[in-house]
Amino acid sequence: MFYIVGLGLCDEKDITVRGLEAVKGCSRVYLEAYTSILMVQKERLEAFYGKELILADRDMVETESDEILRDADKEDVALLVVGDPFGATTHTDIILRARSLKIPVRVVHNASIMNAVGACGLQLYNFGQTVSLVFFTETWKPDSFYDRIKENVDLGMHTLVLLDIKVKEQSEENLARGRKIYEPPRYMSITQAVSQLAEIEELRGEGILTPEKTLAVAMSRVGGGDERERIVSGTLAELLEQPSDIFGEPLHSLVIVGKRLHHLEVEYAQTFAVNPEAWRNVAKNVYGCSLD
Amino acid sequence: MFYIVGLGLCDEKDITVRGLEAVKGCSRVYLEAYTSILMVQKERLEAFYGKELILADRDMVETESDEILRDADKEDVALLVVGDPFGATTHTDIILRARSLKIPVRVVHNASIMNAVGACGLQLYNFGQTVSLVFFTETWKPDSFYDRIKENVDLGMHTLVLLDIKVKEQSEENLARGRKIYEPPRYMSITQAVSQLAEIEELRGEGILTPEKTLAVAMSRVGGGDERERIVSGTLAELLEQPSDIFGEPLHSLVIVGKRLHHLEVEYAQTFAVNPEAWRNVAKNVYGCSLD
Repeated sequence: MFYIVGLGLCDEKDITVRGLEAVKGCSRVYLEAYTSILMVQKERLEAFYGKELILADRDMVETESDEILRDADKEDVALLVVGDPFGATTHTDIILRARSLKIPVRVVHNASIMNAVGACGLQLYNFGQTVSLVFFTETWKPDSFYDRIKENVDLGMHTLVLLDIKVKEQSEENLARGRKIYEPPRYMSITQAVSQLAEIEELRGEGILTPEKTLAVAMSRVGGGDERERIVSGTLAELLEQPSDIFGEPLHSLVIVGKRLHHLEVEYAQTFAVNPEAWRNVAKNVYGCSLD
Repeated sequence: MFYIVGLGLCDEKDITVRGLEAVKGCSRVYLEAYTSILMVQKERLEAFYGKELILADRDMVETESDEILRDADKEDVALLVVGDPFGATTHTDIILRARSLKIPVRVVHNASIMNAVGACGLQLYNFGQTVSLVFFTETWKPDSFYDRIKENVDLGMHTLVLLDIKVKEQSEENLARGRKIYEPPRYMSITQAVSQLAEIEELRGEGILTPEKTLAVAMSRVGGGDERERIVSGTLAELLEQPSDIFGEPLHSLVIVGKRLHHLEVEYAQTFAVNPEAWRNVAKNVYGCSLD
């Protein structure tokens, strides 16, 4: 059997009982180290599972799937992925490959940011499409996310914005010289994300992400409990003004609040507000939400 | 501490290790029996946890939250919910109440249909808002879902349609006589859902859910593994023609496929198709997806 096991959002204890049983029975266990980053080190996972883990970067999952699937028709092999196996990055390729090799596949689901985002109090029902925001460079500032957010905003829907992660990145020099030396991982901060949004709003000027009139929720380490999880809500302008440590450790996500907004959503997310009064005022006067 | 623990999608083993540890340490454990239905009985959960469970219907969670939260500032109490605590029904009310009583709260996330729907091979990125479809009666056929699906369809996005569940329902007679006798639970089938969609399409005639030209995916017991999970894809017309047992046991969900469709999505979901060739033809000729 080939298992693809979602690890959930935070640490070694977020695996499900079914997932843990599967891992313990496997002869080889791969840990995908690309799409997202758990908050714990590989060694801690290994100690918890009582198993050695083989690190598999995205390249390996894509190009060496036959090695990962080797003998999985005769023994159990698992690929562990952060979040859910069908979250931000799907694993349909390797599943299709397994099927074509007549290897039985079992997916073990778990929480991912795509559903845990509900922790900010906004209804999952009212989210439109999810968008990704990549690191801008001097010369490359892809802005198609703006059109996607606009589509959601026009319908009054909330938008989950996933912030870029760079792992296993080579400097231009190392790349040019073919040296396999990698830069330390980088995670887009809330401040950088909001500032990139502002830059594109300035450029496009369609009033979709007006700093003082757009409500947003910054989230970090969702599911990590009070010690680790941080949720901060406010206008884009307010979020931009905050010292960056208020947002906690990476990974971060950002939600742009849509106008189809229920007063209970406003009230719940207000508990995370930089300035609760300002939050209510914008919800009432700009978003047109009926609040007592 | 007050824990709200997501149980995931299928059975007792879908709880996370963190969730299980929390449950084992609680002095009282409530099981919410409303929004969704696990595939196992309460007794099996009790045996697995080594704990007695107190059934809490939606009424109780809403109106007797202080009883559920009693002493949770001094001891640990858990409320177990199917899926994720912030899934289709959020539990923001009881969390707000706990906070106002200065009771610390810990949410334990898990998979819910809102992210596990990715198992059909369609990208979660490309889903718009989620809609609910309720049982029609002779006199009550609410059709606002049609407008919501239209909004998604116009943008090319997929739509997750959650099908109605009736639990703790009273017959009109029992209701009138004030007898607390409840009907057996009812779950909307795929056949009924598709036929309700067809009825409203007929009425509204906006070509959003044309039986022969709209692709859809029927899902049941997602995450249940090969023995229990069923995924069936086809046009709405094809799904309507299938014998109902092909769709497996409840709960069912339905996905309406949007036109922003990648060829890999078509290929993966094709593995579940009633008629793979027809599936590809509609994807190519109606949806305009480039397939080799």
